[in-house]
Amino acid sequence: MSLSMQKARDWTGIRGFPNATQNKLHELLEKLKYDKVNTLTILVMGKGGVGKSSTVNSLLGERVTYVSAFQSEGLRPMIFPRVLAGFTLNVIDTPGLVEGGYVNEQSLDTIKRFLLDKTIDVLLYVDRFDSYRVDNLDRQIIKAITDTFGKKIWKRSVIGLTHAQLSPPDGLSYDDFLARRSETLMKVIRSGATIKNREIQDYDIPIALIENSGRCTTNDDLEKVLPNGICWIPNMMKTITEVISNGSKAIYVDQKLIDGPDPNLRGKIFIPYILAFQYFFVVKYIKGSIMGDIKKEKKPLWQLRDGF
Amino acid sequence: MSLSMQKARDWTGIRGFPNATQNKLHELLEKLKYDKVNTLTILVMGKGGVGKSSTVNSLLGERVTYVSAFQSEGLRPMIFPRVLAGFTLNVIDTPGLVEGGYVNEQSLDTIKRFLLDKTIDVLLYVDRFDSYRVDNLDRQIIKAITDTFGKKIWKRSVIGLTHAQLSPPDGLSYDDFLARRSETLMKVIRSGATIKNREIQDYDIPIALIENSGRCTTNDDLEKVLPNGICWIPNMMKTITEVISNGSKAIYVDQKLIDGPDPNLRGKIFIPYILAFQYFFVVKYIKGSIMGDIKKEKKPLWQLRDGF
Repeated sequence: MSLSMQKARDWTGIRGFPNATQNKLHELLEKLKYDKVNTLTILVMGKGGVGKSSTVNSLLGERVTYVSAFQSEGLRPMIFPRVLAGFTLNVIDTPGLVEGGYVNEQSLDTIKRFLLDKTIDVLLYVDRFDSYRVDNLDRQIIKAITDTFGKKIWKRSVIGLTHAQLSPPDGLSYDDFLARRSETLMKVIRSGATIKNREIQDYDIPIALIENSGRCTTNDDLEKVLPNGICWIPNMMKTITEVISNGSKAIYVDQKLIDGPDPNLRGKIFIPYILAFQYFFVVKYIKGSIMGDIKKEKKPLWQLRDGF
Repeated sequence: MSLSMQKARDWTGIRGFPNATQNKLHELLEKLKYDKVNTLTILVMGKGGVGKSSTVNSLLGERVTYVSAFQSEGLRPMIFPRVLAGFTLNVIDTPGLVEGGYVNEQSLDTIKRFLLDKTIDVLLYVDRFDSYRVDNLDRQIIKAITDTFGKKIWKRSVIGLTHAQLSPPDGLSYDDFLARRSETLMKVIRSGATIKNREIQDYDIPIALIENSGRCTTNDDLEKVLPNGICWIPNMMKTITEVISNGSKAIYVDQKLIDGPDPNLRGKIFIPYILAFQYFFVVKYIKGSIMGDIKKEKKPLWQLRDGF
């Protein structure tokens, strides 16, 4: 058994939740079992430092993954299987998808291989609620996930937004802020996953707000509650269970999905011709241009010579 | 006069501050004038969405730049000159230095050209206090600033950390969090600016905490105050004025600095040889390897042919 595998064990963490939360979670699991769903596998992905591991801890009610604000990610995926009354909940924590401003293709590859022969019921794509802007890097991450697991993974997705106990910037209400943040994120997801306008209804990706801070406000029942009055833990689980009942199919990761489209035919054959083109056309142009520059150069020749 | 230039006008914004803050600011300006300093030019730089423009607004006590949480940056630098009792405060807001996960060299180039014939007294490098991690992209930004303005700009720098009214993650006090965040940032700055261990004392870059939210807590004197009891606006100005009195020289941006090291001699001459090397060695290797792949390919030849 590899280090990153854990034997399924009883979900004792649920007992640490306030009674009100426990009741709601039990109700959701009963409903799933009634629908003949006995396993739920949640894949947690996102950039580094957004709170993926903290979310896994909050969700399971146990400190399963060591989280330190200033430490960088774990390097490989970890699966945490928990059993409760015949129901298995698998939560998979993964390393961050961005390294030094690029999509970390290696992380994604490691995640994909780790998932071989597993079925992803829901992708929980985590980002911060209190980031205001999205940029092309976000789009690239969505595109990379889409290229890896297929566009249909977005029918099985929930966007989890951490740090949800925020005071919005001036002039915006909490709900306004939520609407704006969701809208900007959805735009970037639609763009990265190439979801066309006419497909938007088929890809109605729900948002779940998350607040992993121990300082999260609680209500009279001691449940963690957000500024908009929502108890976020049972609400997130409810959102997740709704996604698996939306008629879409879970993502089974087989060898074919891991290999991707036939690699020998993906334009690899063109590489030598591109390089030849570079050499015969680009080089000659640059050479000419540099020689021109050197001619225009007013410095004495000995200085140029010293330069190389 | 270009759109991005503003005529110096009276610093009326200062009158909007609480009396206690005004008194501290006047005291700082008096001290500067006593030291024969009549102008202070602050260059504000950083990634997009970290709160540069909000900081400019807070500092001047006016809404000079339009800030919207969800809108992307202005595209060019803006200078805001304000005069008070014979003293001129120039604050320069700049576009974000990162675009789609890369250092935006064009932004940096635009900023550099905008600064021609100006003197930067202090660089206020802005980032979020409530980010936990630094990565190679941060290092690249610091390196790009260093390459553009010279390493000595870090002797004239203050690190401004926004969103400073935070509750640190579990188990850390505010001061612990500040120490950890500062330490990780300083490491990345030293690395990106190639500040060696023996030089650390010469480059002692101070931190100024910033909270631009209108919901910032205030003290009895109505001054905006942080969890550690610091009134951040006068404190930031004090930190800035201390930097200009630390014996280092201001950065004068002349044509030579804009042009950078002689561009004709910076290895440009090697480009054709590198491309030739690519063609004659790399191409042949790849070609051989691809042909090998094709031979191993079990698919019928017609299918391969269809591929191109």
